[in-house]
Amino acid sequence: MSDQHGHLEGNDAAVQAHLKRLRRIEGQVRGIQRMVEEEKYCIDILTQVSAATKALQALALSLLDDHMAHCLVDAARQGGAEQEQKLKEASEAIARLVKS
Amino acid sequence: MSDQHGHLEGNDAAVQAHLKRLRRIEGQVRGIQRMVEEEKYCIDILTQVSAATKALQALALSLLDDHMAHCLVDAARQGGAEQEQKLKEASEAIARLVKS
Amino acid sequence: MSDQHGHLEGNDAAVQAHLKRLRRIEGQVRGIQRMVEEEKYCIDILTQVSAATKALQALALSLLDDHMAHCLVDAARQGGAEQEQKLKEASEAIARLVKS
Amino acid sequence: MSDQHGHLEGNDAAVQAHLKRLRRIEGQVRGIQRMVEEEKYCIDILTQVSAATKALQALALSLLDDHMAHCLVDAARQGGAEQEQKLKEASEAIARLVKS
Repeated sequence: MSDQHGHLEGNDAAVQAHLKRLRRIEGQVRGIQRMVEEEKYCIDILTQVSAATKALQALALSLLDDHMAHCLVDAARQGGAEQEQKLKEASEAIARLVKS
Repeated sequence: MSDQHGHLEGNDAAVQAHLKRLRRIEGQVRGIQRMVEEEKYCIDILTQVSAATKALQALALSLLDDHMAHCLVDAARQGGAEQEQKLKEASEAIARLVKS
Repeated sequence: MSDQHGHLEGNDAAVQAHLKRLRRIEGQVRGIQRMVEEEKYCIDILTQVSAATKALQALALSLLDDHMAHCLVDAARQGGAEQEQKLKEASEAIARLVKS
Repeated sequence: MSDQHGHLEGNDAAVQAHLKRLRRIEGQVRGIQRMVEEEKYCIDILTQVSAATKALQALALSLLDDHMAHCLVDAARQGGAEQEQKLKEASEAIARLVKS
């Protein structure tokens, strides 16, 4: 894991918005646990798992948007090795998202 | 949401296995919250979001496998409207998974 | 690759419907080739690649639906090793779809 | 569709590499047609559909990488409306990819 800080550093509004989404996703995962404990119908559980998956992907797209608008744009203006590094990282993160 | 019960009913081993996975996923989501609060590097956060998404998809595939091996097989043996209903539900659940 | 024949055998309507979709997808892929040759704008090309990907996934879901309604239902009625084999194959095919 | 030209303009090596991949994908789609015509086993056909889908996604990721390394970097250096436009387009293209 990197020591770098990114666009979240000092950006309280973005941090709060992401936390709000993550707490809702945590609530969805706990709701799925309750459904499993109560032995609910498997198809209904699957519907909630798909909803939580979609919420995580939406969060990922939002994090990626902010990352490109800040970290990637800054790196592009710097050019050189910093730009190459940031493009490579973004490309790998997008590939992981597309495959997950 | 359906009133039906599915393969989880009375299947304690399956319930415990799914709960174990779900608690780990809940832990991943809380870990992501901590990373956001600590304003970690966005690409590192994205890596963890992709891991949690993959874990949810693996859980969904496991729930679906059990559903097909129990509920769908039973319905196929009954035939008729019950079989049609269960095939339709499974098909829709798979489509939601593929698109999520 | 298996020697088995599945639900397509002797099912001319299903064969024709799938072929129609596949010819349209082939047309989409050729259209993308033309866009690349004409050095079109990359984002417009990406839009068409996403459309072709979605069309392939819709075809896969349709093939899978038919497979479950015929081959999987037949195997469930037979039970035993045939049922286990068909469930395992379907599960692996769904996992490949979800991950692709 | 846009009138803009992107990173493919005058970049013959990239054009040839993408065309090579697209011709292979076209071959895969024709192979799937042949399998359907010969009424092959549905699970074997699904395996080939998943392979073609993965190949399209890999092409999309490669197009997107080149787009970011050229068009997006150029726009970031220009800043202003051009940068905003290019970020918005890239974000929408990535969202389409993740959802397809």
